[in-house]
This record gives sequence, C-alpha cells and structure tokens, in this order.
Amino acid sequence: MTKPGPLSLNTATVKEQWSLQQCIEGCARHGITGISPWRDKLAEYTTAKAAKHIREVGLTVTGLCRGGMFPAADAAGRQAAIEDNKRAIDDAAALNAQCLVLVVGGMPSGSRDLAGARSQVQDGIAAVLEHARAANVPLAIEPLHPMYAADRACVNTVAQALDICDALGSGPNDRHLGVAVDVYHVWWDPTLAAQIRRANKRVLAFHVCDWLVPTTDLLLDRGMMGDGVIDIPSIRAMVEGVGYDGFCEVEIMSTGNWWKKDADAVLKTCIERHATVV
Amino acid sequence: MTKPGPLSLNTATVKEQWSLQQCIEGCARHGITGISPWRDKLAEYTTAKAAKHIREVGLTVTGLCRGGMFPAADAAGRQAAIEDNKRAIDDAAALNAQCLVLVVGGMPSGSRDLAGARSQVQDGIAAVLEHARAANVPLAIEPLHPMYAADRACVNTVAQALDICDALGSGPNDRHLGVAVDVYHVWWDPTLAAQIRRANKRVLAFHVCDWLVPTTDLLLDRGMMGDGVIDIPSIRAMVEGVGYDGFCEVEIMSTGNWWKKDADAVLKTCIERHATVV
Repeated sequence: MTKPGPLSLNTATVKEQWSLQQCIEGCARHGITGISPWRDKLAEYTTAKAAKHIREVGLTVTGLCRGGMFPAADAAGRQAAIEDNKRAIDDAAALNAQCLVLVVGGMPSGSRDLAGARSQVQDGIAAVLEHARAANVPLAIEPLHPMYAADRACVNTVAQALDICDALGSGPNDRHLGVAVDVYHVWWDPTLAAQIRRANKRVLAFHVCDWLVPTTDLLLDRGMMGDGVIDIPSIRAMVEGVGYDGFCEVEIMSTGNWWKKDADAVLKTCIERHATVV
Repeated sequence: MTKPGPLSLNTATVKEQWSLQQCIEGCARHGITGISPWRDKLAEYTTAKAAKHIREVGLTVTGLCRGGMFPAADAAGRQAAIEDNKRAIDDAAALNAQCLVLVVGGMPSGSRDLAGARSQVQDGIAAVLEHARAANVPLAIEPLHPMYAADRACVNTVAQALDICDALGSGPNDRHLGVAVDVYHVWWDPTLAAQIRRANKRVLAFHVCDWLVPTTDLLLDRGMMGDGVIDIPSIRAMVEGVGYDGFCEVEIMSTGNWWKKDADAVLKTCIERHATVV
C-alpha cells in the first residue's frame, strides 16, 4: 500500500491544551504541514493574524471547521445561519482553506421533523453556494454518524450528502460542492465503497481517528488511529481510488484521554500513528 | 391516523425490577396482551414453566430476544453460535413466539474486518434457517443503530438486512426470514420509507421507544415514547403501509430512569404513551 497523504492537524485534537497560535507553532515544530482550525479559535486569534502566521510558517489549511447548522425554528434563524455561513466562507477564503467543512445541523429544538430539517439543510447550502463559488471556497458536506442525526447533523451518509450535491447541480467533477469523509462517521456504512466511487472528485477532505470499543461518550470519546476498530487503510484506499491525493486530517475529540495529555506528546503520537496505521 | 396495534412488553423494559414470572403477571394485571421475553429471564424461569404461564394468561409472544451473535474468531466459536441459535429457535417454538429476534453480532474481539463479520452473519443465518423453517419460527433480523456496528450488530440498516434475506432466498412475501423494525435503530435512515416498502410482508416485528437528546449512554439511555425526537407515528405508518398489523413492542433499556422506577408505574406509562404518541 502507498503512503498516506501528508498529515494535517485539526485543532480540535488539542483544543483544551492549545490556542490556534500554539497549534500553528506546534505544527511547525513537529514538521506537520497541514492544519484545520475551528472558528472559535480563529476568532480568538483573529483571522488576519492567523492567516499571516499560517502563511509565514507555510502550512496548508486543509479545511475550516465549520459552517453549516442551517435548520432553525423560524425564518429569521435560518437567515442568521446563512449569514454566518457567508462569514465562514470569507474566513476560509482569507485562510486560503482547501474547503469549508459543513456540519449541517440537526432538528431545531422540540422538532421531530427530520425530513424538514434535511430540506432546510439543502436550502441553506443552496443559499450560500454562489457566495462560496465566488470566493473559490469549496463546500465540503460532512456526513456525521447517525447518532448525531437529532442534534448535530441530519446528513448521515455519503449517499445523502451526494444527493444534495446532485440536487444542487454539482456533478462528479465539480469540486465546489462535495463531501468530507471522516472515517469515524462513515466506517460502518455498507454502501461506503460504492458511494465514494460515486463521489469521485467530490471527496474534498479525508479525516481520521478511530472508533473505540467501548465508546463511553457519544461526542467526546474518539480514539487515536490504531486504538480502535476502524480499518482505516481500507477507507483510505477507497478515497485514493477516486484520485484523492490530499492530506489526512486527524481530528480527535477526547475529554477522557487525549485532551488531558501534553499537546506535544499528542502530536508525536499522531505523527507516529499516521506513519504506521493510516 | 388509525390506532396502533396492541401493546407488547419487551421484558428488557423492566429487567432490573421483575423476573419473567412477574412480567407475565404484570402484563395480565395491566391488560397488556403481548410479551417478548429475553432468554436470560426465560432460563431462570425455565421454558416449560414460562410457556405454561404465558398460555394460561393468554399472552401473545411477539418475539423471543434473542438469537444472533454469529461472528466468532474461529470455526468452533461460529459453530457454538449456530448451536445456540438452534436452541433459541426451539425455545421460541415452545413459546409459540411470532419470531426469534436476531441481534446478529459485531466483529470478534481484536478484529477490524467488518465485511468479514457481515459475511459470517449471513453464513450463520443460512446455517440455522432450515431449523427455523422446520420449527415454524420466523427469524427477524434486527438492524441495530450504526453505533453498535463494532460490538453488537454489524447489520445496521433495513437495506442490509433485506440484502441478506434476498441472498438467502426469502422473497418479499416469505415471512420465514425478515426484519424487526425498531424505531430507535432506524429512525435516522433517509432510505427508511423505501426500504420498508421493499421489506413488504417481511416486517416481522415493530419495536418502539424514543431517542433522547442528549443521549448519555450508547446502550442504556433509551427514552419512553414521547420523551424524545423520533416521529414514531410516521414510522408506524410505513410498516402499516405494507400490511403490518401486529403488536407494538415497547423495549426501553434505561439504567438512569426507567429501570429505577416502580415497574407497575413503568407499565402504566407505557400504556398511556402507547395510546397517545405511538
């Protein structure tokens, strides 16, 4: 098997330990060439300073996390989400990010209308797509694991993300709207190989971590690559099979373990596992 | 909307409070006409005594929980699972159960071969299917939520369960091998309506509970119908749309809430919610 694409650090991996400035410095120190910041950290540092620092260090921004969260209980809420996504697109453009990752949102509080939320997601993406094209920021819909369908993302499979791409006119070679494939969210899907073939050039990002057995928290118990049960190389082969040659972005949210460790040690482990089990 | 089918008590709902004997007495006392026992409780009581008691009280056994758990690290383990499933089929026949529910099993410990586990599941079902036909016990493959793919059930969608049915020669009107539809496991699936139409007469059981937001435990934090975000009536309409006219089986595993309450109070709540929100 070929080597994986270069490592990118999603800053969520050390979010409890480091600011964005420290993450940029940490990547430079450890020879990590990609970074994917979250917007809260970006706002702390300011987009201008972060963009300058990232440029100076020579990092590739593999994604900005995150846009999305489109569904809302009323029209004003949906419009606010659209405006916020446009700001996120502008930030992504300022960082020269390879994509804006969309965590699309779940059902508004108190709602049981999953189909309605899904429809609102598609409408929301449609409403920001031209802004993204004009800014040259590809939008990467990230299907999230079905356990987040209620409150975080009602797009839960690659197939569903691609249905939205198709509906909005994004053909298999149009990289302005595509999918972020995170092994944590999709590894269980029996249609994964077929849907990644269908995605073709629309695979805009590849995220890695691992599924632990047991998993003790639905959100914050992700595992380091190699510590869980996901056959990561087989999923990497799928995305490379359609020509994906970008970064492997490591994104681990882990209150109980990795967020408690020294961040330099976490980065060293990421580098070692990226070289051995991805 | 029409009324739901009659209520059945899956004994897991009060497993911390009651023995199977108490569950049978409780159903009779509360006017619940269906029951679905688990095998551990059945073994405690003995199949013969339970069958006699259930017959005397006039309960319908809507399912026996559970067969399955087919994958194993070696051939001896797989053969042991097959033998155990045959015993489960015999118990289901003794109880005149409407089906044996199959929770198919996940990957053997230490394995990352999800496709291999899925293949072992199909082989395992194939190996017990004639025994089940001869005993006149329909086998109901229960797709479990994808969050259980690793350690509990690697069949995670109705589509996947039906693919197994199709592969083993069970046509859309063959009720010897079909699916158990539990709203907790399938509510998120964007292909659900289409797959239930495909299942047709192969919907062998319909289980209800609810998805809580937040969900604090992957296994033991299920909600009472009405307390969560699942649009249960819409899923009931799907199964009734293909002619399902059986029981609504309530199955709630809840360490933090329902398992701590007085079991008679739990049954009263089940009855009330069954009448109002299912």
